[in-house]
Amino acid sequence: MKQVAIGIDIGGTTTSIGVVDREGNILYEKKPQLSTPLKKDNPTGSEIISEKLLGDYINLLVEEIKAAIEVVAKINPEIGVMGIGIGAPNGNYYTGTIEHAPNLPFTGVIPFAKLIQDKFPQIKHVRLTNDANAAALGEMIFGGGKEMDNFVMITLGTGLGSGIIVNGDLVYGADGFAGEIGHTTIGRGTRLCGCGSRGHLEAYCSATGIKRTVYELLAKDNNSESELADIPFNQMTSKIVFEAAERGDKLAKEVFDYTGDLLGEALADTVHHLSPEAIFLFGGPVAAGDYIFKPTKESLERHLLPIFKNKVKILPSGLKMGSAAIIGASALVWKELEKHGY
Amino acid sequence: MKQVAIGIDIGGTTTSIGVVDREGNILYEKKPQLSTPLKKDNPTGSEIISEKLLGDYINLLVEEIKAAIEVVAKINPEIGVMGIGIGAPNGNYYTGTIEHAPNLPFTGVIPFAKLIQDKFPQIKHVRLTNDANAAALGEMIFGGGKEMDNFVMITLGTGLGSGIIVNGDLVYGADGFAGEIGHTTIGRGTRLCGCGSRGHLEAYCSATGIKRTVYELLAKDNNSESELADIPFNQMTSKIVFEAAERGDKLAKEVFDYTGDLLGEALADTVHHLSPEAIFLFGGPVAAGDYIFKPTKESLERHLLPIFKNKVKILPSGLKMGSAAIIGASALVWKELEKHGY
Repeated sequence: MKQVAIGIDIGGTTTSIGVVDREGNILYEKKPQLSTPLKKDNPTGSEIISEKLLGDYINLLVEEIKAAIEVVAKINPEIGVMGIGIGAPNGNYYTGTIEHAPNLPFTGVIPFAKLIQDKFPQIKHVRLTNDANAAALGEMIFGGGKEMDNFVMITLGTGLGSGIIVNGDLVYGADGFAGEIGHTTIGRGTRLCGCGSRGHLEAYCSATGIKRTVYELLAKDNNSESELADIPFNQMTSKIVFEAAERGDKLAKEVFDYTGDLLGEALADTVHHLSPEAIFLFGGPVAAGDYIFKPTKESLERHLLPIFKNKVKILPSGLKMGSAAIIGASALVWKELEKHGY
Repeated sequence: MKQVAIGIDIGGTTTSIGVVDREGNILYEKKPQLSTPLKKDNPTGSEIISEKLLGDYINLLVEEIKAAIEVVAKINPEIGVMGIGIGAPNGNYYTGTIEHAPNLPFTGVIPFAKLIQDKFPQIKHVRLTNDANAAALGEMIFGGGKEMDNFVMITLGTGLGSGIIVNGDLVYGADGFAGEIGHTTIGRGTRLCGCGSRGHLEAYCSATGIKRTVYELLAKDNNSESELADIPFNQMTSKIVFEAAERGDKLAKEVFDYTGDLLGEALADTVHHLSPEAIFLFGGPVAAGDYIFKPTKESLERHLLPIFKNKVKILPSGLKMGSAAIIGASALVWKELEKHGY
């Protein structure tokens, strides 16, 4: 029998579904991705609308899971579906619930894993956590963290997500929500964070944070000769900043220096907590390579206690951008099997 | 056979030695405490002086360990010494070494556990970690953390020490030094930390930090009517500040508010990493009760993501002040036995 797992990643706008084998190969992936129900379809947080949207979404997922299994079973009838792993915003591993997710239209605490499990009683393991935790598991099982017992995964996207591995296990904490490093306070400035507070790390060090830094520096230095000065806020991406840096744009380089400087300082606090072997960076901004890694490393070292200096690696994730979400979600299942010794 | 462990705590000026049973009772404690070799006896960091001081210190400890075992064996000849636990500054659990401890006269990396082990080949477990990690183990085995798998121990003394429990185990990290929350950056002001950096938490939130805050606020507000304005810097203690607060001294209360405000903000970052069930505070300033707990809790809650609010307890340590060091060190041995299932 060939063991496979279903990996589902619930993003803010799209949902990915795929079938992954135990070596981390994606045997099937739904293309195009499904639409995630949108917050704006339930702007007032109505419970009735929430229930309707949730019911439709669960039905859609169930159909797509069945279709995925069917496709893979046609190629290899010997497959055994060992479980379903789900990465979801505000996903609680212990309870399998999605709780008060600010970017989803569902209200309150949704027993999401149970709703899926009820439709597939024959599948033993249905597990759910947030996307960054799932990515950390993916990194441990299939990526650069294979030989490591202690590392931290940082995902740089719209926000800054994180997953923490201690003693070879993901840290879920007392309530199932550990690993929210993006919401630690960086203390410089007062940028509004997606969570409603100010000064949080993810408001500075994320794809969105990089964009914001461009305009903060433009405002500060009135740097009209930068090519970034001709691009509207809503069109700016970390890729554009990277390409400008490659062409020698001073402001673009300064944006990465500023980002790395803050990220390194914040990650020093993480090292002072956990003393990881490595910190993996994942996401769009990672493509900027040394523009972001160099200032991050320098700032990290500058802020570390002597006993920690020159020990912690800052590495690009070993997971591929496009497939990491599904592979990370499937890793929830493989980790579960590992715990049970099969 | 009655199982006992030797607990040794190496402080900056004194060293405690005791014999502890598996219920956490101290059967013997060396009084007065031994003197720890002082940094000032080797101000230039000479290797020759370091070796001499270390040799004498090890010999002294060996004599005192033998004497301690003898005293306890006289009362109960059936004792079995299961191990020796040592709490030491910059103590590395994995290697049993004391590494570049800034407050000790020993240079470089000292194989301290091995030096003791060599003198007691018949004792199976000689284990070493830093004092705050030892205290966290003591809290888990004998204190308020008995029923908890995830908590954080904060010790407020000359500095701010910390020990982190995740999934029922102490977090040592990749290199054995995890749990240095005192050296995370709090970002307000630029106070010099004992480690030589500026702006670290322990420069604000520790017994010493409280003292410093008194004089910072005196300087800032020229608050000459406070009773604290009549006490020299070198005589100030957190106990004096507490007693002044009890008498209604406004500045004294403000000092605790300021301390708690910063501590709560920093601990929110810890919660965002680890989501512990509780954070235990230990040390002299804890005697101030609500003066310090109330502002800490309020600030913590203010800085937490909604999913973490009203979940994390801030509690006084369940360990007694005088005996915590020895009991914590002995807990290293009990944890070791637990791991080996006996």
